[in-house]
Formats: sequence, structure tokens, C-alpha cells
Amino acid sequence: MKKENISIKEIARLAGTSVATVSRVINQNGRFSEETGQRVREVIEAYNYRPNELARSLRVDKAQVVGVIVPDITNEFFSYIARKIETDLLEKGYMAVICDTNESMEREKQYIETLKAMRVGGIIYVSGDQKIEPIRGIPAVYIDRKPEFVNGDRGSCFIGGDNYQGGYLAAQRLIRAGRKRIAIVLHARTIATQEKRLNGYRQALYDYGIPGGEELIYQVENVDMDHGFRITKEIWESPERPDAIFYSSDILAIGALQYFHERGVKIPRDVSIVGIDDIPLSARVTPALTTVRQDYLKYGSLASNAVVKMMKGDQEKRTYILSMELIERETV
Amino acid sequence: MKKENISIKEIARLAGTSVATVSRVINQNGRFSEETGQRVREVIEAYNYRPNELARSLRVDKAQVVGVIVPDITNEFFSYIARKIETDLLEKGYMAVICDTNESMEREKQYIETLKAMRVGGIIYVSGDQKIEPIRGIPAVYIDRKPEFVNGDRGSCFIGGDNYQGGYLAAQRLIRAGRKRIAIVLHARTIATQEKRLNGYRQALYDYGIPGGEELIYQVENVDMDHGFRITKEIWESPERPDAIFYSSDILAIGALQYFHERGVKIPRDVSIVGIDDIPLSARVTPALTTVRQDYLKYGSLASNAVVKMMKGDQEKRTYILSMELIERETV
Repeated sequence: MKKENISIKEIARLAGTSVATVSRVINQNGRFSEETGQRVREVIEAYNYRPNELARSLRVDKAQVVGVIVPDITNEFFSYIARKIETDLLEKGYMAVICDTNESMEREKQYIETLKAMRVGGIIYVSGDQKIEPIRGIPAVYIDRKPEFVNGDRGSCFIGGDNYQGGYLAAQRLIRAGRKRIAIVLHARTIATQEKRLNGYRQALYDYGIPGGEELIYQVENVDMDHGFRITKEIWESPERPDAIFYSSDILAIGALQYFHERGVKIPRDVSIVGIDDIPLSARVTPALTTVRQDYLKYGSLASNAVVKMMKGDQEKRTYILSMELIERETV
Repeated sequence: MKKENISIKEIARLAGTSVATVSRVINQNGRFSEETGQRVREVIEAYNYRPNELARSLRVDKAQVVGVIVPDITNEFFSYIARKIETDLLEKGYMAVICDTNESMEREKQYIETLKAMRVGGIIYVSGDQKIEPIRGIPAVYIDRKPEFVNGDRGSCFIGGDNYQGGYLAAQRLIRAGRKRIAIVLHARTIATQEKRLNGYRQALYDYGIPGGEELIYQVENVDMDHGFRITKEIWESPERPDAIFYSSDILAIGALQYFHERGVKIPRDVSIVGIDDIPLSARVTPALTTVRQDYLKYGSLASNAVVKMMKGDQEKRTYILSMELIERETV
């Protein structure tokens, strides 16, 4: 265990030099030999020392900081959630720091430890895995991807969308456009979310008497434009082409638009497309994407409210499931 | 000043209850009265207590954390820089936490204080303002937008692109396409960067004998698709329409594409467009955006290297200016 709050005097003693010299090394001004500088820096590092001037200037309480863990900051869905959390927290006098795990479970765990080590006051957590353990010893709110323990854990707060409804709305829209062979592209890693969307899609096909089948279900390992492009190529080159595709993320569908543009495939004449999320970009691509809106800014504000309540010592053991909504644009 | 490291025994004494009960409150399991729970939580909060189990489980040293301050995490330019920094730091055994300032100078200052309070080991800083003060007492690397002090401050490391060259390449490309009235859209707030791009643009016009003029220079307050859309509407409805526009950010140009699509304006038949940055999205929009590439992933990796060197006690007083490159696509 490293000792903290070592004094500048002790550093001078341990490095065998004067207080004035230590101060010069710390502030990187004035003269000192390379050897002395090295010795002082070693002591500083070994004792994890931070200058006192710094401690005195602190106007921010680190317990007022909330860590926000997201799986992919390059996806607007998560960057806008993070932005919303940050803006809402600021209004309440709290700061947010964002941790991007790049969909790595290992990094999620490292970030939780890091945030605890930094003694943040709370955590808002979008995990890539529903099998995560609850975070203990610190207020935590979970959003978007529902961890398995949430149903059983009385101390947890979860906020997310009605994924079954999302899958149903998307498939229903494609069916109503007269489509008969409707493929679905899922994310291989967020199983609970994806299963609910798949069930909604299947129910819609069943309700309208449209054939389904395993050969219409596709999976991607990562959710980004590049994977959307590549899976679409695979789908389009398959022996029995679908006439419609539901992508379980707008960013995948936007990658698909590029593929179809390059191939000269006309949307929606040759194929209809529906996404899910309604990120800002979806309204701005050409053709504009028909999608199922998740009220993800609301996820952010509910999460901010909940974590602040919990940080103040109140309990907030709630599960919020928000409904989704079909947004008509140009791809169906 | 709040006392830290209070023991669970002291909490029990102050809350007038047993150690076992305090433990139950902390772990939120087992039985305790609402009143006792409340009292224990008050003591915990007043003394800023964190459970010992937590302290013992720490495998992460907070001095191994680098704070990354960016002006706009919803812009791919910054989210990809942040992702690159994070990935590179992880390989070296460090963690990154991201602070998004939403282009607010006040928030930048708050984040610097917050990061210092959290005792991170270093800071990588993309400021929205070149008039910032150098960060003292902690290793800091500046990227993309050059602070004024960098030229004079011997202890600073800056990494950015050759903005003069960027402006020149963009204007030159439009001139070579036969364009005669070339507008430029700048960001009103990042003055040093924008002036260099404007100078490059002006030099190209001068070199090729193309008329310039103040009426061709436009500014936006924020850099996002919405502002790109709106400034383009203003430009297109002006009495003397340009036949080409250089946007000082891809995300602005992508907003412009939407405006022209809605108006039925054909690109590049009716107007030519060049952006700057080469974010991933630029290759994927329709039509794909001709742009000037900044090697922003390199900014991220150079910054990670530099900050780690500085955190190890080495000095890294360098300014890196990387060249830019024209990327041909479909909008000229």
C-alpha cells in the first residue's frame, strides 16, 4: 500500500536533498542536477505524492464525480447518452467522466476498479454483457442493456427500452409495405436485448402470417458501419435474397446504405430497410433512415436523476422500461 | 476538510449502532430499520467513507489514469481520437477517462480541477480556446488546437495538423475543378486553427488569380450537422451564390449534403464541396465527401506516448505539426 500525503520535507530527507531543491524539481524551474531530479522523482513516484499547492486549490469534491461506462463512444447512440448525462449532472452540481470500453468485458471490469480507486461518487453503467455482477459499495445505475441480476437484486436501478416492442414495430412496418422475406441483423454479444428484439420480430411475422426461418437471421460481432456494410454484402449475395432487412442498430443500417449505394441498389424499390435507435445521423443520411426511436436522451436524464438520488443516500430500486416509436422516413 | 479512512467501528459508534448493522447497511443486505440505515448513511456521507473491502480490492493505481479532455464527444473526430488514446494507453498499462466539455470553456476549467482532485497521473487536452493557461503540477499534452502559450512555454508538448496547408489544399482542389466563387465556412470559436486555414485558402485563391472577398467567408458558432445545414441554407439563399464551398469540418459538410439533398441540388454538378478531417462517416455518406485528411489517430498515439513519457518523469517539450492530405471522393 502506497503512503499518501507524504510531506515535501520527508521527500527531501528521503532523496537526500533540500526542500528548496525538491520544490524546484516539482515545479520544473530553477537549477538541479539530473541525478538529484531523478532521485526526487523516484521518491515522489514511490509515495504517490501530489504537491500541496494542488491539494489546496481543489474546489471540486471527487465524490461529486460520476463515472459513465459506455461500450462504444464512437456510436452516436452512446455519445449522445453520455452528453445528456453530463449536461444533466452539471445542472445538479456534479461532473461526469466517461469510460469507453470498446465492447470489452475485461475493460469494463478495469474501469469499475479504476473509478472506485478514484473514489467517484457513483457509476452509470451501460454494459456489453448481461452477466455482469452488481457493482457494490458505490451507487450504480444500469442503462440500455439489462443485466441478469437486475430482476433479483433489490438494490439496483435499471433504465432501458422495450426491445420486444422495438422488434415488433420494425417487422410490422416492413410487412405492411408488402415485404415477404424479411431478414434481421442482430448483435451477437448483447444477447438479452437481441433476443427480445428477435422475439418481437418473430411475433409480428407470426401475426401477419409471413414466413420466418433461421436462414433470415444474421449476426454481427461489432456494431459499426463497417460491420453493417459487410453483413449486407453477405445477405445480398446469399442465394435467396430478402426484400427487406431490419438492422438492430441504426449504425449498422447506415453501413448498409453505403453498400447499396455502391451496388446501385435502389432503396426502397429493391429493398426496404428499418433500423433501431434513431440517432441524429439517421435523419441526415441519404436516403433518410426509417427507424424505431429509442428515447435514449430520456435514459440519460433518468439515470442522472437516479444516481444523484442514490448518492444522497436515498434508495432508487426501480426498473424503467420506456416504449419505442416508429419513425417514418425514406427507406421503406 | 472531510476526514477519510474512518473505520467501520467509528461509523458504528457515531451512528449509535453495531458494526454488523453498519456492514448490512453498506452491503444493502439483511435487516435494519429505516432510521438506523439513514443514520449510518449520514455518517458515511459526512466522513466520505468507502468500504475497506473496496480499498483492498484495488488493482488500479489512480496515478495510472490519464484524463482526456475533448470539446465534443458527439463528433467522430474527437470520439475516434479519444478511442485511439484509450487503446494505446491500455497497451502501456494506463487507463483513460474522457471529459466532454461541450465546447464550454468554463467546463474545461472545472474538468481540470476535477481531474486534479481525482489525482490522475496526466492530462491530454483538446481545448476549445487557444488562450488557456498551461496546466501546472501534472503532466499535460495538448492536441489539435494549439494554445497560445505553447510557443513560449518550455514545458509543454503540442500535437496538431498543418492547418495552413489544409486550407490551401481544399481551395486548390476547388479551383482546379474550375470553380470561381469559393466560399469558406469557419468555426467562430477556435480562432488560431481557423485563421491558419483561412490564410491557406486565401493564398491558394491568390496563387491562381481567383477573386476572394469578405462576403465569401462564413462562420458558425458550433460544429455539428445542424449548423452545417443552416449555414448552407444561408449561403445558398444569398444573392450571389458560390459555386463551391470549403467547410472547416467534415461534420459541417455532412450537414450541407442533407440540405442540398432536400433542395434537389446536385453535387458536384451545381456546387462542389470539400471538408476537412476525414472522419469515418465522410467515406460513407452519399455522395462520399471529398476532404482533407488529418491524421488524427496519429495525434492520439503521439499524445499517448508523450503523456506516458512525462508521467515517468521524462521531459517531452516538443511540438509536432503533421501534414494533411487531400482525399478525392465524389463531391468535387
